[in-house]
Amino acid sequence: MIVQKYKDMLKGKSVIRQLSEFATARGEEIGYENVFDYSLGNPSVPVPQEFTDVMIDMLQNCDPMELHGYSQSLGIPSVRRAIAQSLNKRFGMNYTENHIFMTTGAAGAIAHAIRCVTRQGDEILTFAPYFPEYNPYVNLSGAVLKVVPANVEDFQINFDAFEEMLTDKVMAVLINTPNNPSGIVYTTETIKKLAALMSEKSKEYGHDIFLISDEPYREIVFEGTDAPYISKFYSNTLSCYSYSKSLSLPGERIGYVAVNPECADAEYITNMCGQISRGTGHNCPPSIIQLAVSKVLELTSDLSVYEKNMNILYKELTSLGFECVKPGGTFYMFPKALEEDATAFCEKGRKYDLVMVPSDTFGVKGYFRLAYCIDTDKVERSLEAFEKFVKAEYR
Amino acid sequence: MIVQKYKDMLKGKSVIRQLSEFATARGEEIGYENVFDYSLGNPSVPVPQEFTDVMIDMLQNCDPMELHGYSQSLGIPSVRRAIAQSLNKRFGMNYTENHIFMTTGAAGAIAHAIRCVTRQGDEILTFAPYFPEYNPYVNLSGAVLKVVPANVEDFQINFDAFEEMLTDKVMAVLINTPNNPSGIVYTTETIKKLAALMSEKSKEYGHDIFLISDEPYREIVFEGTDAPYISKFYSNTLSCYSYSKSLSLPGERIGYVAVNPECADAEYITNMCGQISRGTGHNCPPSIIQLAVSKVLELTSDLSVYEKNMNILYKELTSLGFECVKPGGTFYMFPKALEEDATAFCEKGRKYDLVMVPSDTFGVKGYFRLAYCIDTDKVERSLEAFEKFVKAEYR
Repeated sequence: MIVQKYKDMLKGKSVIRQLSEFATARGEEIGYENVFDYSLGNPSVPVPQEFTDVMIDMLQNCDPMELHGYSQSLGIPSVRRAIAQSLNKRFGMNYTENHIFMTTGAAGAIAHAIRCVTRQGDEILTFAPYFPEYNPYVNLSGAVLKVVPANVEDFQINFDAFEEMLTDKVMAVLINTPNNPSGIVYTTETIKKLAALMSEKSKEYGHDIFLISDEPYREIVFEGTDAPYISKFYSNTLSCYSYSKSLSLPGERIGYVAVNPECADAEYITNMCGQISRGTGHNCPPSIIQLAVSKVLELTSDLSVYEKNMNILYKELTSLGFECVKPGGTFYMFPKALEEDATAFCEKGRKYDLVMVPSDTFGVKGYFRLAYCIDTDKVERSLEAFEKFVKAEYR
Repeated sequence: MIVQKYKDMLKGKSVIRQLSEFATARGEEIGYENVFDYSLGNPSVPVPQEFTDVMIDMLQNCDPMELHGYSQSLGIPSVRRAIAQSLNKRFGMNYTENHIFMTTGAAGAIAHAIRCVTRQGDEILTFAPYFPEYNPYVNLSGAVLKVVPANVEDFQINFDAFEEMLTDKVMAVLINTPNNPSGIVYTTETIKKLAALMSEKSKEYGHDIFLISDEPYREIVFEGTDAPYISKFYSNTLSCYSYSKSLSLPGERIGYVAVNPECADAEYITNMCGQISRGTGHNCPPSIIQLAVSKVLELTSDLSVYEKNMNILYKELTSLGFECVKPGGTFYMFPKALEEDATAFCEKGRKYDLVMVPSDTFGVKGYFRLAYCIDTDKVERSLEAFEKFVKAEYR
């Protein structure tokens, strides 16, 4: 018989997907260029040409048996070495290839990291607002996700609530900075305070508490923002990275876990990831993509459009009276809705062809997310719609 | 703290990997061309040129945002449709795209299939000799793998033992035909008998028993061999396929689950796979590889070398006095060792630079596996070594 728990999951429909479907349907009526679709977090700028050139060059000139051959289950050694060296150079770390485990994006990385450090029933804490996929990521592993309420002042960490929830049952803390959905970046001060508290509690409880740092937006940081490399501040850190956003390759499923060399049992963790992978389906990222990415490690797509879009939107929305913590990175912002019920607010916005995601789905009430990874031209054309919307509905 | 069960797995070292490491080390001494390395099941013929051409064409001419964009979590609809149509045409099935779930190879397919139909503690039966990775595949999912003893007559199914082990606790049966390591193909008669017994027991126990059919060697079938399409004989079949062998793309991690349209709850299963994937790391295969494979579905690598190698080896080994069931497909054969202890036998062979895998690792005693996916020239040069080995050690 089929397994009921997975069948039951089919009933719930993602709010974001429903909104995206609305945007598509509405686009068929009035032309998609006239739908101000801020629902989906998909990169809107192409992969660097160098990546494409490297791919073509390998396909034309490499031995196909080597190019498409089995990668070692931890990833191709030369690729892991190149990533370690690049991280060391940029962030002053001491990774070797033995600390890098290649994964199918950040989701794959988190799946392995969770299983390395939590058993059935162990708790993992994360902080609202948070990426809702953390629920299946954690709960289907057998661990239990608990969400620390938001600090709505500035979307840094609500330390009082965190300390209260950081009990003996907590084996890992899962953070995401730069953050989806708020767009904020944890400051050095926040990270230091987080690390200090986790160290203190690890000692008190007599067991390690791991920091799982989800970093797909690491390269999308705006001018003047303090964006510390998390692992520098806390040894027991497993950094989960994806090239989906920085290289605009979400469909190619490539990322990694980087294990802090000072981490407890650092010498076992990537090899344990290899064992975990045997249970979840040998989900090594594709060899040709591993090889191609390793040759463009210092490049990113032209990410400047996201900052440009953010500035345009931030200026307009604040001048319309929205409260909003200014994003330090990502391609999201998270303003306060103009009424308590964010779902009602977003529904009204749809009358003006503004597609926004209510904050409930991110574990906070009364806000909405804009994913401004769309053409700047469309962002500019949406300003009039925001103005009409606010004036007609809330003045 | 890190999780002990994965750490403990690091102690066991794969026999096949150790042998492969021996072959590599010995190759450094005497030249790898002089090591008759029959240890590893890696394709030895390149991907068809058409695949490479399609890849280059897409990289040169497609919009990179579409080419590298997120695939739907079940796979790209046009790819799933193309696969369904190809299977229907070849095997007289009635798949639609809704019955196809794209995976990272057969390992990914099996990981999803297992989780669809078994809960914690449920039993899955497989048949010796069997691919040893089935142990972590099944046991790390929470289900329990039980191995039905071999029918050493012809390596078809030992039905007496199977019937005895097919208790109420068994929720799925995992088969692999054409088979690694024996190279045999289950006959239509075997499949019909298997299906009849599973149907009978399903009725008796009042619950479905699913057939998980692992088919990475489906396209490697030798002349005159009866190789039925399994799913035609039993509705509750989840076929797990990989392009690793047929297209020589093991590193690119692509395959699928094909759900028989007549299967119980067929309308839910691929969507359930999508939910399962959220828990194991959104391990969708890479979009560019999905698209490229969908354009060469009717092609395979030049697989004829495997049959050629088999014929050469079979003739030589039987003339040397080995007992061996003649393979009907794959690139493996599984002769009886010349002494009871297969490990001792294979160790002696290494003196003659013959690298063979003892059968214990496949759940049978007294046999050995030859993976003859190597150059025919090397196969021919190995014959002298086999002769020397047998004459010196066993005459």
